[in-house]
Amino acid sequence: MHRMKILGLAALAVASLLIGILIGHFAIIPTQLSWLKKMSGDGDPEYSQQLHQEIQAEEIHKNLQFFSKRPHIAGSFQDEEVLMKYIHNTWKSSLDGSKIYNYTVLLSYPNASDPNYVAILSDDGTESDLSDKVEKILSPDQNDSSVVNPFNAYSPPGVIVGDPVYVNYGTVEDFQYLTRNLSMNLTGTVAIARYGKIFRGHKVKNGERFGCAGMILYSDPADYVVGSLDRVYPLDWWLPGTGTQRGTLFTNYGDPQTPFYPSTNSAFFLDQKNMNLPKIPVTPIGYNNAVKYLSKMSGMEVPNKWKGRLNITYRVGPGFASPYEKSKIKLYVKTYNVQKSIKNVFGFIEGQYEPDRYVILGNHRDAWVFGAIDPSSATATLMELSRALSKLLQKGWRPRRSILLCSWGAEEYGLIGSAESVEELGKALGPRTVAYLNVDLSLSGNSTLLASATPILHKLLFAAAKKVKNPNPCEIRAGRKTVYDTWVKNQPSLYDPNIPRVFDLGSGSDHTSFLQTLGVTAIDMQYTHDKKSSIASYPMYHSVYETVDLVSRLMDKGFYYHQAVARLWGELALRLADDVILHFDCVLYAETLQRVVNEVHRGYGPELLEHNITLNSVKEAVGEFLQAAKAMQSRAEKADRENPLEVRMINDQLMQLERAFIDPLGVAGNLYYRHVIYAPNQHNLYAASSFPGLASAMFDIENDPNQERRWKQVKKEISVIAYTIASAARSIEDPSSIGGGSTKH
Amino acid sequence: MHRMKILGLAALAVASLLIGILIGHFAIIPTQLSWLKKMSGDGDPEYSQQLHQEIQAEEIHKNLQFFSKRPHIAGSFQDEEVLMKYIHNTWKSSLDGSKIYNYTVLLSYPNASDPNYVAILSDDGTESDLSDKVEKILSPDQNDSSVVNPFNAYSPPGVIVGDPVYVNYGTVEDFQYLTRNLSMNLTGTVAIARYGKIFRGHKVKNGERFGCAGMILYSDPADYVVGSLDRVYPLDWWLPGTGTQRGTLFTNYGDPQTPFYPSTNSAFFLDQKNMNLPKIPVTPIGYNNAVKYLSKMSGMEVPNKWKGRLNITYRVGPGFASPYEKSKIKLYVKTYNVQKSIKNVFGFIEGQYEPDRYVILGNHRDAWVFGAIDPSSATATLMELSRALSKLLQKGWRPRRSILLCSWGAEEYGLIGSAESVEELGKALGPRTVAYLNVDLSLSGNSTLLASATPILHKLLFAAAKKVKNPNPCEIRAGRKTVYDTWVKNQPSLYDPNIPRVFDLGSGSDHTSFLQTLGVTAIDMQYTHDKKSSIASYPMYHSVYETVDLVSRLMDKGFYYHQAVARLWGELALRLADDVILHFDCVLYAETLQRVVNEVHRGYGPELLEHNITLNSVKEAVGEFLQAAKAMQSRAEKADRENPLEVRMINDQLMQLERAFIDPLGVAGNLYYRHVIYAPNQHNLYAASSFPGLASAMFDIENDPNQERRWKQVKKEISVIAYTIASAARSIEDPSSIGGGSTKH
Repeated sequence: MHRMKILGLAALAVASLLIGILIGHFAIIPTQLSWLKKMSGDGDPEYSQQLHQEIQAEEIHKNLQFFSKRPHIAGSFQDEEVLMKYIHNTWKSSLDGSKIYNYTVLLSYPNASDPNYVAILSDDGTESDLSDKVEKILSPDQNDSSVVNPFNAYSPPGVIVGDPVYVNYGTVEDFQYLTRNLSMNLTGTVAIARYGKIFRGHKVKNGERFGCAGMILYSDPADYVVGSLDRVYPLDWWLPGTGTQRGTLFTNYGDPQTPFYPSTNSAFFLDQKNMNLPKIPVTPIGYNNAVKYLSKMSGMEVPNKWKGRLNITYRVGPGFASPYEKSKIKLYVKTYNVQKSIKNVFGFIEGQYEPDRYVILGNHRDAWVFGAIDPSSATATLMELSRALSKLLQKGWRPRRSILLCSWGAEEYGLIGSAESVEELGKALGPRTVAYLNVDLSLSGNSTLLASATPILHKLLFAAAKKVKNPNPCEIRAGRKTVYDTWVKNQPSLYDPNIPRVFDLGSGSDHTSFLQTLGVTAIDMQYTHDKKSSIASYPMYHSVYETVDLVSRLMDKGFYYHQAVARLWGELALRLADDVILHFDCVLYAETLQRVVNEVHRGYGPELLEHNITLNSVKEAVGEFLQAAKAMQSRAEKADRENPLEVRMINDQLMQLERAFIDPLGVAGNLYYRHVIYAPNQHNLYAASSFPGLASAMFDIENDPNQERRWKQVKKEISVIAYTIASAARSIEDPSSIGGGSTKH
Repeated sequence: MHRMKILGLAALAVASLLIGILIGHFAIIPTQLSWLKKMSGDGDPEYSQQLHQEIQAEEIHKNLQFFSKRPHIAGSFQDEEVLMKYIHNTWKSSLDGSKIYNYTVLLSYPNASDPNYVAILSDDGTESDLSDKVEKILSPDQNDSSVVNPFNAYSPPGVIVGDPVYVNYGTVEDFQYLTRNLSMNLTGTVAIARYGKIFRGHKVKNGERFGCAGMILYSDPADYVVGSLDRVYPLDWWLPGTGTQRGTLFTNYGDPQTPFYPSTNSAFFLDQKNMNLPKIPVTPIGYNNAVKYLSKMSGMEVPNKWKGRLNITYRVGPGFASPYEKSKIKLYVKTYNVQKSIKNVFGFIEGQYEPDRYVILGNHRDAWVFGAIDPSSATATLMELSRALSKLLQKGWRPRRSILLCSWGAEEYGLIGSAESVEELGKALGPRTVAYLNVDLSLSGNSTLLASATPILHKLLFAAAKKVKNPNPCEIRAGRKTVYDTWVKNQPSLYDPNIPRVFDLGSGSDHTSFLQTLGVTAIDMQYTHDKKSSIASYPMYHSVYETVDLVSRLMDKGFYYHQAVARLWGELALRLADDVILHFDCVLYAETLQRVVNEVHRGYGPELLEHNITLNSVKEAVGEFLQAAKAMQSRAEKADRENPLEVRMINDQLMQLERAFIDPLGVAGNLYYRHVIYAPNQHNLYAASSFPGLASAMFDIENDPNQERRWKQVKKEISVIAYTIASAARSIEDPSSIGGGSTKH
């Protein structure tokens, strides 16, 4: 009995001890283990829901009223002080921090007391048919003493008198039609080009190249009005005849004074003669003015495709017809360049586990006038998103990685603010930036989402769009509950109708230097109008009529589309900041490359073959890349999520893949564009070109007198593409493969 | 009593439970926690000791016998097959893996059946005083049918007849002395230049620039013999009169056919006329031959500094003196270029925690002839080090980071193997390489260690050298027990006699593309002779006499210096691969920059001031950098070593600092050299230049007719330096500072 007692006591002690060991080992989790556990989990979906709920349409409306109340052109007090400080103070008080970056850059303005104009100059020296010097105010909200009259930035000043010539959109092909087909000599003429199709700066580059002495840019109703010319703003959102599109002519990006280096205190500034700026005077007019000149033109009637919607017979010129045959067109331009201080503002949310990884959300702040669409519709959205994020922080959320919000200055002049910061901070941003998410404007219409991105982000974009409630009640009633549903319906992919179309990234907004010099994966997005409507852009683009009235009355009553954009932007940010393993799809990148190669083969193959050139090396490299991408994906899926260094290794490789497509020597030697797969079309900044180096080498090759040199260039570009893709394959292979071995295999 | 019993039982249970909880919680450590613990510890010093013990001098001797038994010039079967495969097989079987990289590159050889020579050509067309076509064999071990006769790689073939001119070392200053001070016209002459002072390729560049039609390079005893000319090899290690230095003339690096891109299957090859190769025929001779021509020269006697140690009166020419005044010098060169396959071999030891971080050890394999010093003394060392590392692996060691061993091909022609691999694999190597440790040759003497490195590695180098036993027993007896002790005594720093001098990195070996294009921190090191002896290099450099006999009989009996180099190399590798926090000293980098700025200020300051230029922006940037460096150091010291992501963040910043000094646009536009702080002197590849862009802009500025353009260039270079240093400061600041905030501050 005594022994039984002892045994009993011993059993009790052992049992208690065992239970204790179990509790001690499993139930009381050491700090570091719970930390490892927590670190191995994706973001809590609860926070995503809270973010969506927190984002209020009415707040965005209020923000927009504030941001677009007054004109805020780059370099102005309103933009560089009032709005800049408001953003800085808001972020400083609601986020982890905020910082201002200041640059001294070259901007351009019209002379307020001596405005630009166009006129007909008779042989006796009298001027008639003067264009409006001021864009007509149609309602009191546009009436502000700081409205800047229509002009094209960086035009040199000058007074040009010459024969007018109508050059359609001013594309290379348009000019070639005049000089080759019609054998016209354009030297000394004043070209009248309509806005649309290509970036206006390239219209002027073409005009210079073909000898024009000056250029007038105008908006033809064919490109900015659908339906009756009587139903224009303020009745509807179409451009009235008084509306005039401002805009830069700079074909590079960043401060023209300091290519590739930041315009900080220690900067070396180029002389103006060494900057790549327009050499001929240029100014824009509206169609009420343009009709005065175009209706009087002499010369042949234009081809059908060149006809606009003015009620006249379009003629190419040169010169005016009777009774104006002795008259010339006069272009009076007083636009001037001046150094100004511009500012970027950053807001910061520090990552919990990987503070040195940045998810960057960016939007520019400067507008040509009130900018209620471009850019303030997105600034208003960004501010609401930042408010919602600060609420999440208060509720205990903290992302795995850091989030950086950027308000860029002087985008309109040539992406200056973002380019200068990327130049100044590139050595810190380059190795750390996970992705850059740009919204230049929240909406240019309300038909569908429009998104451009590199292939690695497509699937994440789809997943995020599926989480955002459709802002259009009619669509919801039709069963399309999310942004994604309307997107895939209204803009299906050209290759697969079951997914939406994602465009390739051209230039035209602040993602450019992130993608093209740092190799940072990027998205640029907005809500847009129905592309079938064939308008060149949203009609009021860069005119004085871009006001809150336009947005809230004719485009987004209730601000639900803005809200959807804010939610999508936020959803993407959360995923990129919180996913343990980045949802970057390199297999899709490889498949996209396969498709691009096949397209290029279809397009150039026969011509290449005539010169004994094949794309075999590129195809082979794409094959290697596809194989590496599949292996990378499988490693990402199998990764031990509780091993932070393995997770980091996988993410580093995924993140750096886009860097592998960067050629530090520039595409075909152009240092502004270094992404070998995607870069803007060399003749149109807005459009993207696949394999831009090859496209540029092949462009108009048949008319180059030096055939040998050109075909060598083609061979070289093919070699660079093959090398770059193979190099990208190397970058996503298992890091041990470089040395031919691993302990694991 | 009953109650007491129950209480007792309860107490027992509770006590047991508590003990259990304690055991369970603290004694039974979960796998992940023990893993975190292990990961937070530096390498076990036990392994370092074992490594030192394992490295056997006698094994290195045996390796050297094997590697230098036969000539193994780049492109030869012996180098690209026999030795390459031996290394590959050794590493494949003893390490985690090995991989071969193959490139098709342009090499150059003399014509074996029609050798180069120099002669005196009389006016009747007879040749006399022919130079030796073959380097004389002095002992049977040099007798091998595959010895390649003396030549300079990439010389074009040609037969040149002209007046000889003695141009001393062929520096810019030497040529300027002849043309400016002596008003000589060198057009069409054949320059005789002695080896030494500057890279031979730049002698020829200068010769071309000053109009010479051909060039003869020779070794003057003044630069290769100390003491009596009778006590030369094989009696002592000094160069005999028959010894001739081979060597490349290529002033860039990498395959001349494919600048900046790898020579893989898809490569685009330049036409020879577009390659940057010498344009005039050149060949080298020994001093027994040179004396035949130099003794017969006419013209003025040379300045004292130009005199060599030949027993003649040195004269500048042009032409020969009586009775040879009608004779010319004839240069007969049949050197030709040819495409060849060359190979690099990588060996791999996979890192345990950070397999995607590489510590790279490299040495080239190709030799001009037997290469017992250059490079096989280091190949033999590398192979012994790899054997010792494989033993450590067997004993259970596995480094935190990966170690990559590289055997480069075709270094002698212009760092071709390493450059091609850096081009091919740069996107994978760039973000992952911690440091590159180069040993081109183990020893060029046995007086002291000679090391070049960027400042960030100096302290680690000192620490490692302190761990290596002094190979010199006399030194040990004198109380200098370690490599470090002799080093600091024989080569103290110019700034602080208490530490050894570490040189800046020029070019001349395979670290170049790592540092200059990827921005990877590097060390280049060897044991060397007493620098006070004033010889240009170790005497037998690139001659047929570089054999095992030379090394084992006259330079390193017992191979203890080789052993010391192997230990130092291994010690550095262990530290870099195993230290939790990298021992990278950014504060020393900042202090070095301060010193460089002060030196530049002392040198150029007054002249700059005359043109209203100051270095203030650079000084300011250095100040910012110093502050950032101190903060970085403090963060590194305070880092939570059990937080792998914090450790990684700190290390990433330390590792990437050197990248911040890279300008992708090249220093002063030269894409071969992109490191803004250190690059080779533009007139001498072997020497380093601080702020090379500024040095190049200031060089000979007073003689430039376009003063305005030149001084603008100076301003621009100062701006680039200031920007780059500020940018480097940004890169080591706390990652949250970019957005102006942190939760921690």
